[in-house]
Amino acid sequence: MKIILACVAAVSVLAPLGALADAEVKVSEATQACIECHRVIHPGIVEDWQRSRHAAVSPKEAMAVKGLGLKVSSPSVPEELQSVAVGCAECHTLRPTEHADTFEHNGYDIHIAVSPGDCRTCHAQESEQYGKNIMAHAYKNLAGNKIFSDLENTILGGIQRKDGKWSIRPANAATRAEACYYCHGTQLKVIGKEVRNTELAGELEFPKIDGWPNQGVGRVNLDGTLGSCAACHTRHRFSIETARKPYTCKECHVGPDVPVFKVYEASKHGNLFSTHNRGWEFKAVPWTIGKDFAAPTCAACHVSLVVNTEGEVVAQRSHQMNDRLPWRMFGLVYAHPHPREPDTTLIRNRNGQPLPTDLEGGFASKYLIDKAEMDRRRRTLQAVCLSCHGTSWVNGQWGRFENTIRETNAKTLTATRIIQEVWEAGMASGPDRKASPFDEGIERRWADTWLIYANTIRFASAMGCGGDYGVFAEGRYQLNKTIMDLHDWLEFRKQMLPAKNP
Amino acid sequence: MKIILACVAAVSVLAPLGALADAEVKVSEATQACIECHRVIHPGIVEDWQRSRHAAVSPKEAMAVKGLGLKVSSPSVPEELQSVAVGCAECHTLRPTEHADTFEHNGYDIHIAVSPGDCRTCHAQESEQYGKNIMAHAYKNLAGNKIFSDLENTILGGIQRKDGKWSIRPANAATRAEACYYCHGTQLKVIGKEVRNTELAGELEFPKIDGWPNQGVGRVNLDGTLGSCAACHTRHRFSIETARKPYTCKECHVGPDVPVFKVYEASKHGNLFSTHNRGWEFKAVPWTIGKDFAAPTCAACHVSLVVNTEGEVVAQRSHQMNDRLPWRMFGLVYAHPHPREPDTTLIRNRNGQPLPTDLEGGFASKYLIDKAEMDRRRRTLQAVCLSCHGTSWVNGQWGRFENTIRETNAKTLTATRIIQEVWEAGMASGPDRKASPFDEGIERRWADTWLIYANTIRFASAMGCGGDYGVFAEGRYQLNKTIMDLHDWLEFRKQMLPAKNP
Amino acid sequence: MKIILACVAAVSVLAPLGALADAEVKVSEATQACIECHRVIHPGIVEDWQRSRHAAVSPKEAMAVKGLGLKVSSPSVPEELQSVAVGCAECHTLRPTEHADTFEHNGYDIHIAVSPGDCRTCHAQESEQYGKNIMAHAYKNLAGNKIFSDLENTILGGIQRKDGKWSIRPANAATRAEACYYCHGTQLKVIGKEVRNTELAGELEFPKIDGWPNQGVGRVNLDGTLGSCAACHTRHRFSIETARKPYTCKECHVGPDVPVFKVYEASKHGNLFSTHNRGWEFKAVPWTIGKDFAAPTCAACHVSLVVNTEGEVVAQRSHQMNDRLPWRMFGLVYAHPHPREPDTTLIRNRNGQPLPTDLEGGFASKYLIDKAEMDRRRRTLQAVCLSCHGTSWVNGQWGRFENTIRETNAKTLTATRIIQEVWEAGMASGPDRKASPFDEGIERRWADTWLIYANTIRFASAMGCGGDYGVFAEGRYQLNKTIMDLHDWLEFRKQMLPAKNP
Repeated sequence: MKIILACVAAVSVLAPLGALADAEVKVSEATQACIECHRVIHPGIVEDWQRSRHAAVSPKEAMAVKGLGLKVSSPSVPEELQSVAVGCAECHTLRPTEHADTFEHNGYDIHIAVSPGDCRTCHAQESEQYGKNIMAHAYKNLAGNKIFSDLENTILGGIQRKDGKWSIRPANAATRAEACYYCHGTQLKVIGKEVRNTELAGELEFPKIDGWPNQGVGRVNLDGTLGSCAACHTRHRFSIETARKPYTCKECHVGPDVPVFKVYEASKHGNLFSTHNRGWEFKAVPWTIGKDFAAPTCAACHVSLVVNTEGEVVAQRSHQMNDRLPWRMFGLVYAHPHPREPDTTLIRNRNGQPLPTDLEGGFASKYLIDKAEMDRRRRTLQAVCLSCHGTSWVNGQWGRFENTIRETNAKTLTATRIIQEVWEAGMASGPDRKASPFDEGIERRWADTWLIYANTIRFASAMGCGGDYGVFAEGRYQLNKTIMDLHDWLEFRKQMLPAKNP
Repeated sequence: MKIILACVAAVSVLAPLGALADAEVKVSEATQACIECHRVIHPGIVEDWQRSRHAAVSPKEAMAVKGLGLKVSSPSVPEELQSVAVGCAECHTLRPTEHADTFEHNGYDIHIAVSPGDCRTCHAQESEQYGKNIMAHAYKNLAGNKIFSDLENTILGGIQRKDGKWSIRPANAATRAEACYYCHGTQLKVIGKEVRNTELAGELEFPKIDGWPNQGVGRVNLDGTLGSCAACHTRHRFSIETARKPYTCKECHVGPDVPVFKVYEASKHGNLFSTHNRGWEFKAVPWTIGKDFAAPTCAACHVSLVVNTEGEVVAQRSHQMNDRLPWRMFGLVYAHPHPREPDTTLIRNRNGQPLPTDLEGGFASKYLIDKAEMDRRRRTLQAVCLSCHGTSWVNGQWGRFENTIRETNAKTLTATRIIQEVWEAGMASGPDRKASPFDEGIERRWADTWLIYANTIRFASAMGCGGDYGVFAEGRYQLNKTIMDLHDWLEFRKQMLPAKNP
Repeated sequence: MKIILACVAAVSVLAPLGALADAEVKVSEATQACIECHRVIHPGIVEDWQRSRHAAVSPKEAMAVKGLGLKVSSPSVPEELQSVAVGCAECHTLRPTEHADTFEHNGYDIHIAVSPGDCRTCHAQESEQYGKNIMAHAYKNLAGNKIFSDLENTILGGIQRKDGKWSIRPANAATRAEACYYCHGTQLKVIGKEVRNTELAGELEFPKIDGWPNQGVGRVNLDGTLGSCAACHTRHRFSIETARKPYTCKECHVGPDVPVFKVYEASKHGNLFSTHNRGWEFKAVPWTIGKDFAAPTCAACHVSLVVNTEGEVVAQRSHQMNDRLPWRMFGLVYAHPHPREPDTTLIRNRNGQPLPTDLEGGFASKYLIDKAEMDRRRRTLQAVCLSCHGTSWVNGQWGRFENTIRETNAKTLTATRIIQEVWEAGMASGPDRKASPFDEGIERRWADTWLIYANTIRFASAMGCGGDYGVFAEGRYQLNKTIMDLHDWLEFRKQMLPAKNP
């Protein structure tokens, strides 16, 4: 490559692509050093950052903001960081002794994976709230729960068949990292070092990190912290616009197990967003209902600090996110009140299983929020609804939603009783024989009823999109059909295999 | 809440969010009174309305428009409405004695649900046309047809199973309202009153309305009129841009039973819309092909008043919508010529059933439009096509489309004959035993052939999107596969259950 | 029609809709003659062209561009074309003796279907590269391969059933043209002439073309050339913006057999595109990473000439497209190295079948690119990745991708062994009985494993979208489930039909 000599000394923070650069802020010497080489070898990163607020505003200026517009929630930002742009070095050299991947790189102690432990230097409140978010614990909540891990294994594992018998070989790390743990987050581990012959600086040594790359919401970082802020605040522009538009949520919530984006997009809210969003303001903090946007995105209802046109707070910013959510609607056999703690591996149902309900749908109430907390969360969410809808509208909608919670749970129970009868009859091997409840064809048809269809119906109900997702698109049409199929399968086998009952 | 005192007297019609406000128009005293409180408690509604044409132009000014740009089609608008903005009070206090939900509210007689009966005060022609639209009758067309209601019941109803037998418990009103009737429209009914302690005015009494909220196309209103203009002209901005972009149609037509939007989005037209629409003009009336837009949206082909660059009418505005549609392509066992009357409960096939075809595919021709009318509608639609395509292109495309009508009907017939054999063999209980044809697993697989796959293929054909939706995405791949499955199911059971034939 | 007299003489190249018109260029007399009538009868075409670069820049001006911005790659454009706009006549009267559809039309020899043979007059390099693109050969690669044609037939053909036996009737030409060949391209054939009574010029004679309309990527044109540039560079604006946005690729690559767009849209790249693209520059040539766009579209990775912010080439423009692709991931039973030649009908596996692998997954290596070429292509692609990602990121991602190639191939092999056992047991009729491997229900379930699910998983892996498409949305969840179902089906039949083994 002939571009080696192209290192440049001056970095202009002038950006033609949707530029922010209305401020001038000093770039630290260390960051300057990073940019000199990386602007040539990774122009995308550097250009993106140059358009970021981090490049345009110093922490000191950001800390001077009064009132609801304040973004730097940490009361004390280290003095040495306050007057320079939040550049490469400011994040990638922070807390070097805490990061297992810190390595010497052209005279600097760099770590590759920036974590919430770094971000909280300025954004302490958001980081703390996020720690209470069930998503921060998404790695352990899956990997550390033996029932979920069994389900994972039957989905990802390699199926082998020999002499009419079959078995599942556990998925390898690479498969797991790009499948379930793409969203849940991987566990990062430094597994050695490697020397690479680089274009600009010859041979250099780098850490080798198992589980990298990853930006999952529950990534286990090399400083022990949980999560990746970049999951939503995508590097290296970190634009609040990215986090507020629904496309970010879609990365992990598109379906069919959590068809949130698809349902939103087909709802009235989604219609208005798609039709009119180019005229909306996605960067204002606080975010004013009616003035900045005319229909909610995911963030407006669940995360953002939103105010009315008088400037009064309608809902406080929340990075815990579920504090506007009484019900947990997906991923489990039955919908149920949200868990009290974000670490769901602690939960035990009445049969001692790490599940928030038992197979009959009974809640493990000790581990779930109570009625008062559910009411509080409902009211917090409804404050947003009421900004555009009358009380009878909101009450009517909510009544239907809670009816649907009950109705879908009842249907899942019907399906569950059929699969239990299948297990009892020995037509499939279930938990009563210490076998996986997820590794046979008929068991997976049962799993479809709650993991796909009941979920979809509940999301369609919650977001007021009854049309196709509530009925035909993996909704009630498929749910009832699948129950009919389960029934047919069982009854036909009973006819055909009369002597097989144990 | 401390915001009670925030009521304000002056309302500026100045709007930073995609503002229209190029006109000044007087706001009535009554509307002013509404806004004073509601701008605080429902800022979203008020802000939206302030950006609407209704807030910016008086009926008098709108009536003065000459030529094709005229939007107020009523020749006579009541004098007292002509000179003020079309605000809260103008609509929500109109025709108080006609609305069952009219109630006294701070000195005004308000009704909650505004109906086409109100909108026709200014938009008489659109309202009249819409009455002929099959969508206006969507509530009764479903709820009043015993075969469709049976299908609805097997989709929405709760399935119970006892002693190896199962039964369907009819869905409750809340489920029905948020599922099928979310799009079809609910029947509104005042079922009492309730007192609520309001933030700004203490205790107030409001009507309780069963079926509320709803914006379905065939809503049965409290003044007896049918439909909700807000289904497409979303409250409270009522922007023609909303109705003209395809995202509105998507709310009810996304699939898989009517996958119109998905097919459109993957078509050449949809590609051009997605790629270039931000440079198009969606508010111009009339709408000029080539100048205002370079590829059609749903509205351009089916609804809008479109003209060529000479200003000559290519197609007249139609709120009947199907007057550019010879064939009815979805929701029924076979595609068929459009019904003559929008109330389809009147139809009887040769077996006396309320269906536009019999089970063999024969048309109930007496109730369907004739060849001459089909030709007229085809020509009306093709006038739009021909604005961008040559005659041989358009004829070639149409020939394929009508071929596909025949071919998909033939495939549905093959599937139907298999299910009939299943019924005859007693392997499922069908109409010959007075049982539902929709409530067993194998019957639902048959229903898939026409309700999902044949529909999808026809839409892909109609919109020139043969690619994935015509073949792999719930298209011909699945249709043939499902027929193969039906055949396998029947033949295997015949082998296994030789003595069961009646 | 009264518009006959509306022919106009003057054509303004002034366009309010996203206009380009910053240049003045002479329109040829012939094109002027076309426009005079066609602007009235097909305003959409004319308006679109008026906004095109073809209308605004003469070939001579375009040829004068120095460096990477040069778009006219032909060293010699005929003198008579150099100084006029590239208008109707310039393309539709080019090489009249070569086009079988050339006909006399108002004094001009016009052909309807413009081909790459015409476009290469100015765009020689692109045309030549495209000839090496497997897509250019998409017609023959399907129609001329007896195994693929058999699959096509079982998807498109009409299914008839009589006396418990069934048969497939080959699909007619109209069905084929709008289904598989909509994307693959039809074979155009002049099959006669027809006289039409035209609005503006009375009776005129036109050629009748079988296979028209079509814009498929492998269209067999009436001059013998292959392909349709308009597949991506949509007529008549031919905007590079259209080709660079992902919506164009979506027309044929939306799924579920090639769910590229759906996966892209749910990826981080797709998120950034959806969120921020309105601020990006889609017309710049060359296309600068970071400056013109902040996340890649399909074109950026696979087609476009992209440069870094120093103006240095990161990847050369390619209309062969697969020269950045080592692996072929879809449409066949196993993923495999790309074929050497774009005409894949030449390939023979070790069993003499026209397939790139045998049924056990062994590669027909003689016909596929070798390791060195795969490495070259990988490095070409990775140069784009490295513009925004570090080496360890890119290597980590690629390692997972190749792991997924192996893992999905292994799963397909498990599924294939089950269907082979089904065939051997005589429970379905497969190739060992000279029967189609695609025409029975259970065979189609096998086909799902590779044609739908393994594909989807590989695309999710390739584009870093492990979330839903890699797991639940036609990914690993369905793949393993389908293998479980195949196993169940076989074992149950073995139990039920013990004597049927041959």
